[in-house]
Formats: sequence, C-alpha cells, structure tokens
Amino acid sequence: MPEFLPIPVICSSFLIKTELMQLTILGNGSGGPFQGRHYTAQILQVDNHIYLIDCGEGTQMQMHRFQVRYDRLEQIFISHLHGDHVFGLVGLLTSWCLKRRTLPLDIYAPPGMEELITTNLRLCGVRVPVTYPLRFHVVDAAVFAKVFETPTLEVYSVPLEHRGVECCGWLFREKPRLRNIRPEKITEYDIPYTLLPGIKAGQDLVLPGGQIVPNEDLTLPPRAPLSYAFCSDTSPSERVAEWVQGVDLLYHEATFLSEHTTEAELSGHSTAAQAAQIARQAGVGKLLLGHFSGRYNDTDGHLAEARAVFDRTEAAEEGKTYEVEHRD
Amino acid sequence: MPEFLPIPVICSSFLIKTELMQLTILGNGSGGPFQGRHYTAQILQVDNHIYLIDCGEGTQMQMHRFQVRYDRLEQIFISHLHGDHVFGLVGLLTSWCLKRRTLPLDIYAPPGMEELITTNLRLCGVRVPVTYPLRFHVVDAAVFAKVFETPTLEVYSVPLEHRGVECCGWLFREKPRLRNIRPEKITEYDIPYTLLPGIKAGQDLVLPGGQIVPNEDLTLPPRAPLSYAFCSDTSPSERVAEWVQGVDLLYHEATFLSEHTTEAELSGHSTAAQAAQIARQAGVGKLLLGHFSGRYNDTDGHLAEARAVFDRTEAAEEGKTYEVEHRD
Repeated sequence: MPEFLPIPVICSSFLIKTELMQLTILGNGSGGPFQGRHYTAQILQVDNHIYLIDCGEGTQMQMHRFQVRYDRLEQIFISHLHGDHVFGLVGLLTSWCLKRRTLPLDIYAPPGMEELITTNLRLCGVRVPVTYPLRFHVVDAAVFAKVFETPTLEVYSVPLEHRGVECCGWLFREKPRLRNIRPEKITEYDIPYTLLPGIKAGQDLVLPGGQIVPNEDLTLPPRAPLSYAFCSDTSPSERVAEWVQGVDLLYHEATFLSEHTTEAELSGHSTAAQAAQIARQAGVGKLLLGHFSGRYNDTDGHLAEARAVFDRTEAAEEGKTYEVEHRD
Repeated sequence: MPEFLPIPVICSSFLIKTELMQLTILGNGSGGPFQGRHYTAQILQVDNHIYLIDCGEGTQMQMHRFQVRYDRLEQIFISHLHGDHVFGLVGLLTSWCLKRRTLPLDIYAPPGMEELITTNLRLCGVRVPVTYPLRFHVVDAAVFAKVFETPTLEVYSVPLEHRGVECCGWLFREKPRLRNIRPEKITEYDIPYTLLPGIKAGQDLVLPGGQIVPNEDLTLPPRAPLSYAFCSDTSPSERVAEWVQGVDLLYHEATFLSEHTTEAELSGHSTAAQAAQIARQAGVGKLLLGHFSGRYNDTDGHLAEARAVFDRTEAAEEGKTYEVEHRD
C-alpha cells in the first residue's frame, strides 16, 4: 500500500454532497383577491446552497411555514420593483437585524432597490448600518448578462418586457460538474485529500511507485449540469425564448387565460397559452406556470390551455418543491 | 290620525343599525419565529364603520382570510413606524390602486409616514397621485389628544413609552348615544322622518293638534357608550393607566413572561403581569393580551401570569372577534 497522509474528516465534504437542483414555490399569485395565494417568491436550491428569487409581501412567513432554513440565504434576486415582487423584502431584512445576523447578504435587482430599502430602514427605526454586510448590486435589466457566479453556477439577467418597467428574469445555469470519486478507491489507494480536487477535475492518480491509475477507474461521471429560468412578469417575448433556450425548467408567468388576452396585453403579462408557446419555442425540459390572477379560483384552465401547446407543463403550487431534472 | 308626509325608505337608516363595538384580531405576534402568528393589525368595528389599527406585513392577506370587507376602510391608525406594525401598509395602499379605489383614505400616524409611503410608491411604479384621495395626518405621539371625530365617536392618541420611539396607542371612545325609537310608534303617530333625529336626541313629539307625546313613550334608552384602548408597544406606564382609565376593553401588549422581565425592560416592552397591573390600575372592563414574542409556543403562560393580577383577561387569538361590552 502506498504511504500517504491519513484522510482527515474535512475530506467528507468532497464526497457527500446534495447533488440536486430544487425549486420551492412560496407564492404563485399576482394580487388580491388572493384565493389562498401569496405574492411571488421562490427558493432555488442548488446543491447545499439556497437562493431567494423575488420577495413579495409575506415571504418570510411563507418561508417559515414551509420550513425553509432562510437564515442561510446569502443572495437574493429581485426581478423588478413592483410591490407584489418586493414588498416582503424590508421585513425580511429587518427580521435578520433582530436576530443579529452577521452573514453578508447580496441583493441583485434593477435600479432603485438601495434607496427603497435604506429609506424604509431609516424611517422605521432600524439601526443602519445593519448587523450584517448588506450589498446592493444594480442590475441592468435591459441586457442579458452574467450577474453572479460561483465555482459551480452562473446567474444571468434575462430582459423581460413588462410595460417598459425595468424588469428581468433570472437564468441559473450550472457549470459542468466535477466527477464523483468512488469512495472505495480512496481507501484502496489511500488517496490524500489534497489530491481529491484534482481527481474530481479529471486527473489520473500517480502512485508513489510511479504507477498511473486512470481517472475513469477512480471516478464516476457527474450528472449533466442543470439550468432553471425564472420569467416573472412579462409579455410573451421571442427574445426571452432565445435566452432561455433549452433550460431544464422554465418558470413563466401565466397571469391570464386566453379569454383575457387583451388584459394580458395591456398589463404587460402573458396568458398560459403564450407561456407554453415560449416554452415550446425554447425547447425547454419542463414548464411551470405561475403568477395567477386573483380572478381565477383555480388553475385548471391555465393547465389545460398551456398543455394544448406544450405538454410538459405544471401549474406552480405553493409549498411544493419541484426537482429540476435534465431535459433528456 | 295626524296627516304627515309618508315616511320614505331612507328613514330605515335611522332604525336599523348594528349597535355594537367589535374587535377582530388579525395579528397577535411580535416577530419571528412566527409560531403561526402574524404581525400586529386589528379591525375595530363601531356600528357599521370599520377602522384598521396598525398594519404589519401580511395584513391584507389576513383581512382576506378572515373575510373583512376592507375596501370599506376609510381611516387607518398606525401606532409607530416599526416594521412589525407598518410594513403591510404600502401593499394594501397599492392593492387599492389596482382596484381603482376612489374612496378617500385617512392615515393617522406619528411623523415619517408620508415620506415612507410616497417613497415606496414612487420607487415601486405606482402612479402618484393614487386613484383615491390619500391624506396623511401627522400625530404628535407625545401628547394625549383627540385626533379624529365623528358624530358618534372620538379617537385619542395615547403616548406610549417604547424606547424613545414616537409611539402612541389609540383610545376609541363613543359619545353618548342617541335614544332608540320604537318602530311601532312611528306607525302609530305617522311620524315623518325629518323629526326622527330630534326624537332620537330626546325631543318630545308635538302632534298637529298640539298634543305632546313625551319622548320616553316614543323611545327606549340607548346602550351605554363603549370604549376601547389599544396599547401596541410599550413599557408599563402609570400615565397610560390614567389615560385609559375605565375603558371597557383594553388591549395591552404582553410580549414577555415574567422570567424575561429584563428583556422586556431593555426592549421597551411589557410582561403579561405588567399589562395586567396596568389593567387593574385603570379599572378596565376586560384586558386582551397580545404582541407575543416568538420565543413562546403558546400563550398559556401569559394568561396565567396576567390572571393572577387581573382576572378578566384573555389572550388575543387571530381571527377571533371580541365584543366590546360595557364594563358594569
């Protein structure tokens, strides 16, 4: 057996990983009367990290209700500054002050967010600066651009068409993932943890005697990178269909049914059929409808109209978690 | 039979009246973790009119949930500008814009409210001026003073002691009520509706022949005027006990149990026992506890500690409506 350093416990983080992308719907409504619905907010989990997308009034209560461990949030993405997507944010930020949060928080949003939040905090007796580093990132909602990145994920702004309002969706795209090391091989070759990142990246193992163990004997191929696109409030847009081309899961607003196409047009929204048309054009894996108008008691109509155009459609349900699966 | 004008239908409004004062609790919590609780908000109904008191995040959803017909609201009273009492207001005001409300709205609050709301509206794409007359009334929270009045009701600001924050409670006091006309007497004497207000105010009826019908033959005595005091966030205060002396129902915050008296002191709040002590000093009819800290799963402890001091105590339950009854 080759003599290497013993593998410390820390190495377990290279092995045990929640290799998934999951979307939890916190709110699927567009406004009152509420029909039991709440304002737009979603949690996207990528591996062990969670992201909050939009934050309508009541989001913190919804996160509590659905047992989201939201104190771990470090990034929030806000599509636009309409109340039904943002009025829950200042409450959440304030609650974290009361809990004496110290973890930094980054907020990505179109212009105006910093003034909105700082005015609210100042007038509502919150000590500024708050207990944690709070950073505002102004996003140009008119351009498709990378706004955030980790070693495994990229987030892009997706320009939406919402009555001229600065409004963007978000495209979450995983980078190609590292290979998975077969645990039994670590024991077999007594591989030190310092070599594990390289092996996960595809390197072969050179044993002390010079013998080479090919990477494919040590690892298993990773799952395909996943992608999720969130289109909050928008008229149906050909450009959006191009930007979200081939995503595994597309959330697209479907505020109205076809009978209210004029209302959709006037208010800068989409019908369920229009959302499905975008999904078909973009060749996405699955479509999730949301942002339902309060005029509808249920979403049966949305589902029927959308599925007639694009079969792999679901209507977003609050509290439900959707696994993002590779589209093939 | 005396010949008078026939009584038109309009007169029914003098006869049929919901002669009550009722309080509906929309939120009884002070912050997360929520234990199923919501932020402070209440609806006080006086006769056929409703008033909103405080408006924490989620208030509009709570009103919808408990079937409050909140589009009829014309006055809102906000105790102070802390988020858990006010972050639901801008969402509510915005929703009314979407519904194209035209009914005027008056908001009574300590300084800062107009800037808070107008900044939110401006940055969040709400067309200003809004669709309805929106009037802000700046209340000096440091003085006990009448801030609002109708022919039957007066509302006073009650200075509270909340860590130096401009914060006031509200005292709703009915004026002495008009006498109730016995409907059969209207028919018997064919009384024209123009005379009804005078008779309700205590006048006798002079028949065309000069004969006098004494008022007590025509009317029944009204119920005693009722009063309700709302003390949102406050350290226990002797002055408050004086101002709310003898009210029929006192809502007093009881954020903490006695074991957390130091926390109460530091944060400008009260324990349940302290709230009960105020109720006893003030000789109120009934005490309602609220604003419970999220650290407590239930309110059994609050109730037990308060009742040991003041027996006629209840713990505010969300969705429950409390009849304000005369204290005798």
